Amino acid sequence: MNREELIRLIFAKKSFLCIGLDTDLAKIPQHLLTAEDPIFEFNKAIIDATHDLCVAYKPNFAFYECYGTKGWQSLTKTISYINTTYPDQVFSIADAKRGDIGNTSQQYARAMFDPASSGMNFDAVTVAPYMGEDSVKPFLSYPGKWIIVLALTSNKGAADFQFFRNGDQTLFEQVLSKSQQWGSHDNMMYVVGATQAELLGDIRKIVPDHFLLVPGVGAQGGSLQEVAKYGLTTECGLIVNSSRNIIYASTGADFAMKARSEAMKMQQEMAEILGL
Amino acid sequence: MNREELIRLIFAKKSFLCIGLDTDLAKIPQHLLTAEDPIFEFNKAIIDATHDLCVAYKPNFAFYECYGTKGWQSLTKTISYINTTYPDQVFSIADAKRGDIGNTSQQYARAMFDPASSGMNFDAVTVAPYMGEDSVKPFLSYPGKWIIVLALTSNKGAADFQFFRNGDQTLFEQVLSKSQQWGSHDNMMYVVGATQAELLGDIRKIVPDHFLLVPGVGAQGGSLQEVAKYGLTTECGLIVNSSRNIIYASTGADFAMKARSEAMKMQQEMAEILGL
Repeated sequence: MNREELIRLIFAKKSFLCIGLDTDLAKIPQHLLTAEDPIFEFNKAIIDATHDLCVAYKPNFAFYECYGTKGWQSLTKTISYINTTYPDQVFSIADAKRGDIGNTSQQYARAMFDPASSGMNFDAVTVAPYMGEDSVKPFLSYPGKWIIVLALTSNKGAADFQFFRNGDQTLFEQVLSKSQQWGSHDNMMYVVGATQAELLGDIRKIVPDHFLLVPGVGAQGGSLQEVAKYGLTTECGLIVNSSRNIIYASTGADFAMKARSEAMKMQQEMAEILGL
Repeated sequence: MNREELIRLIFAKKSFLCIGLDTDLAKIPQHLLTAEDPIFEFNKAIIDATHDLCVAYKPNFAFYECYGTKGWQSLTKTISYINTTYPDQVFSIADAKRGDIGNTSQQYARAMFDPASSGMNFDAVTVAPYMGEDSVKPFLSYPGKWIIVLALTSNKGAADFQFFRNGDQTLFEQVLSKSQQWGSHDNMMYVVGATQAELLGDIRKIVPDHFLLVPGVGAQGGSLQEVAKYGLTTECGLIVNSSRNIIYASTGADFAMKARSEAMKMQQEMAEILGL
């Protein structure tokens, strides 16, 4: 999905919501556990109930890998379901935080973007910048695909290195600046945590029109209004993620409809923010 | 495997060699491609032919993930084979470069260290430090398990951020210093590329007795002698990885024996370095 299509989707759906599929067997409704693939059944129900309210889904790879091959199978089924049931209706993000030397990142790129090899076909992948240019560039050789580079994350540990400072410039600012030599706003976004909303103004000076993927609204304490105040652009420029608040809104038989209600609350707030 | 056991293994085998299992269907002997699981068959043959010459194996996750669920299956079979066929005889490293917010890293830790959940039981996992303390600490809650933190990597892109400087201190030096608050030399190692051997002396001032995992000897151009000159400690303190030079020494039916020959060359050089 290219930038124009993504923007069109956002304004058509009046939403810049991403739903994080951090699907955990310990938290999903217990009645699903008798299914052959409870994780996929849960995801399918959530996706069917929310696909018109969000613009993106973001499976968090850790929650699948912890179940080994079976988890990887649930992950593959989930992205295939999104691709075949709602083609071009939703942007898909592999939240995998990958990054390694060039010949290795090339293989990770195949995993995320080459269905003939891996069975998976995401629109975007999150990447960790620590290893620099050649760890990131192989992902950019797939036309129409995106990388989402970690810049300023939502967690407490963000303070450990991301604010490491060279004169006036912090490491995360250096990541934002330097990485613009690798790709453009057509194939590169950045992760900026909602818990860092007050810094979004400064970040927008460096990346005025790149899309930002913003986690941390909800369970982690970030505010949608604050994020929009400092991060919104005329083309929206934001994809705001919510995971636990939506997908675990209920543990009963009504979980999918309760997830829909929570997603709708966010979508309505977003429509207002977009002035639509 | 704890530190004492690892050191004992190194001196018993007169080797600090790690063999990287970057197994690529395009590079393995073509006669294996008719097997039901060519990747596993290749790994098994390499392991059987080299297990007495190396102290560690390091499957590189990207090379499995690019084949999706089937690749993950080959990976799981490989680590299970190592664990059951050569128990306590070899250290196993999940080269996965993971790291995310706390509740997510917890799931990645289950993937690597909790066989009841994931079917995989590695001794160690490589982690990316960008997201800081809470992205790394969940891996340290497993007794007897290790994290190997990216410090100074072997690739060209290492120059992009790892040398970002605050006064006298570079980012990789800050990673080495700061991370020592999270774990000890009993459960934490660092990745330092062989292509950066001249910096090993400075690195040893910050981490005098931590083990260093050193990739980049061979195909990437690093020298074993240089690495040993600056990095060796009285307890060895080094695990030097070689991947392509060993596992792809031949593409014929003799591939495993040729891999053994290459591994033996390195082991003999290492025995000399260790003065054994």
